[in-house]
Amino acid sequence: MLNANSPIPLYHQLKSYLQDLILQGVLKPGERIPTEKELEERFRISRTTVRQAIGDLINEGLLVRVHGKGTFVAQPRIQQHLGLLTSFTQDMEAHRRTPSSRVLQFETCPATPQVARALQLKVGEQVILLKRVRLADEQPLALETAHLPAEPFRALLDLDMRQRSLYATLKAHFGVEPRRALQQMEAVACPAEEARHLQVSRGSPILHIYRTTFDQSDKPFEFVESYYRSDRFFFTMEIWSK
Amino acid sequence: MLNANSPIPLYHQLKSYLQDLILQGVLKPGERIPTEKELEERFRISRTTVRQAIGDLINEGLLVRVHGKGTFVAQPRIQQHLGLLTSFTQDMEAHRRTPSSRVLQFETCPATPQVARALQLKVGEQVILLKRVRLADEQPLALETAHLPAEPFRALLDLDMRQRSLYATLKAHFGVEPRRALQQMEAVACPAEEARHLQVSRGSPILHIYRTTFDQSDKPFEFVESYYRSDRFFFTMEIWSK
Repeated sequence: MLNANSPIPLYHQLKSYLQDLILQGVLKPGERIPTEKELEERFRISRTTVRQAIGDLINEGLLVRVHGKGTFVAQPRIQQHLGLLTSFTQDMEAHRRTPSSRVLQFETCPATPQVARALQLKVGEQVILLKRVRLADEQPLALETAHLPAEPFRALLDLDMRQRSLYATLKAHFGVEPRRALQQMEAVACPAEEARHLQVSRGSPILHIYRTTFDQSDKPFEFVESYYRSDRFFFTMEIWSK
Repeated sequence: MLNANSPIPLYHQLKSYLQDLILQGVLKPGERIPTEKELEERFRISRTTVRQAIGDLINEGLLVRVHGKGTFVAQPRIQQHLGLLTSFTQDMEAHRRTPSSRVLQFETCPATPQVARALQLKVGEQVILLKRVRLADEQPLALETAHLPAEPFRALLDLDMRQRSLYATLKAHFGVEPRRALQQMEAVACPAEEARHLQVSRGSPILHIYRTTFDQSDKPFEFVESYYRSDRFFFTMEIWSK
């Protein structure tokens, strides 16, 4: 199966091999993979090679090591397609996961320069800040801080946002619908507070996203800063040439 | 400027304030920002608050700390818009940077299961592997490993790919042009070898991208795995509702 004469390093060949078994469903989510010793003997490769391949697959979120129990195939990550503007609630329902939210903060506050710029307000104007941990099947997936102009959305503050989709609420109560969004993505080391809410290690790699969402008249109504757990999420998109 | 009664933590207010000065160009790339002591006195906030704000801005790539010299505004990052399928060479030229490449590997090898699946080949069929460090103004930005079917592209191997755009070459020599691409993005901890080539610390957060590119007849002609330095790159995109 592995070829010592190939220019592809052995650890990479083993990694691809295991990756393939997982993607083809031969190894299923929750299943224990062979031990390091078994892989070493089966492929006649060094322990270092085995460890490197498995380490990479753990980093990439395909495998999970459970202390004292072995290494297991991870639950499949949620694939979010960036082709269409959807709500977190819609995304989760498409993946047959039950979405919920833990509301950390929900109040008005003055717009910071960054928020004011995005929402075309003056610095210090009142905005509604809604900070939520987004969960799927009770597991934290993302931390989202949305800012909306306090006018005309102040009545939002009377609603319980734990089970509710913000977009569905905005549509029902204010007739406002998202038409397009500008999104900025980067990889960052997860800051301490965000790590605590997401139950990941501080400094672990995480996707950091800024999004400004525009309504039917192309007015920005929402500025969102999010952190998405990389071990539970990956993003896909389709790009076309002109 | 900062408001101790706001629900927004002080460090976050200071961070937004500095961020704004940078984005508005009041603080310019390469300029030294005030010392921690100066910020502490000017805003009457604790050293811890100042450090947290500056630490965050360093993590986000807006500031750079130079040991023994102070903290400086970073060179602006390259913004890559994911709306249109472009080559690295085109992207860099759009940013008035001089693109170049260091070729690490350029040869044929058998397709791994992952590569075979993407390129619709059989496992073990010959592919051309082109692994390059992509540089802008001599600085490493990304590590790209492209795989192309050895047939019909074998003649590529006779060309010098250091200064050449792969897409321009494919068009000129084979009449093949990219029409669309499927792209997958995630944040990972930078593996050791990749960190060395990109001159970042091992384990630092980095964008990991897989891309399969399709030609005019929607046949996949390229499968690329890339690592993009997050401190020098961020990605933007526009998303529309249906």
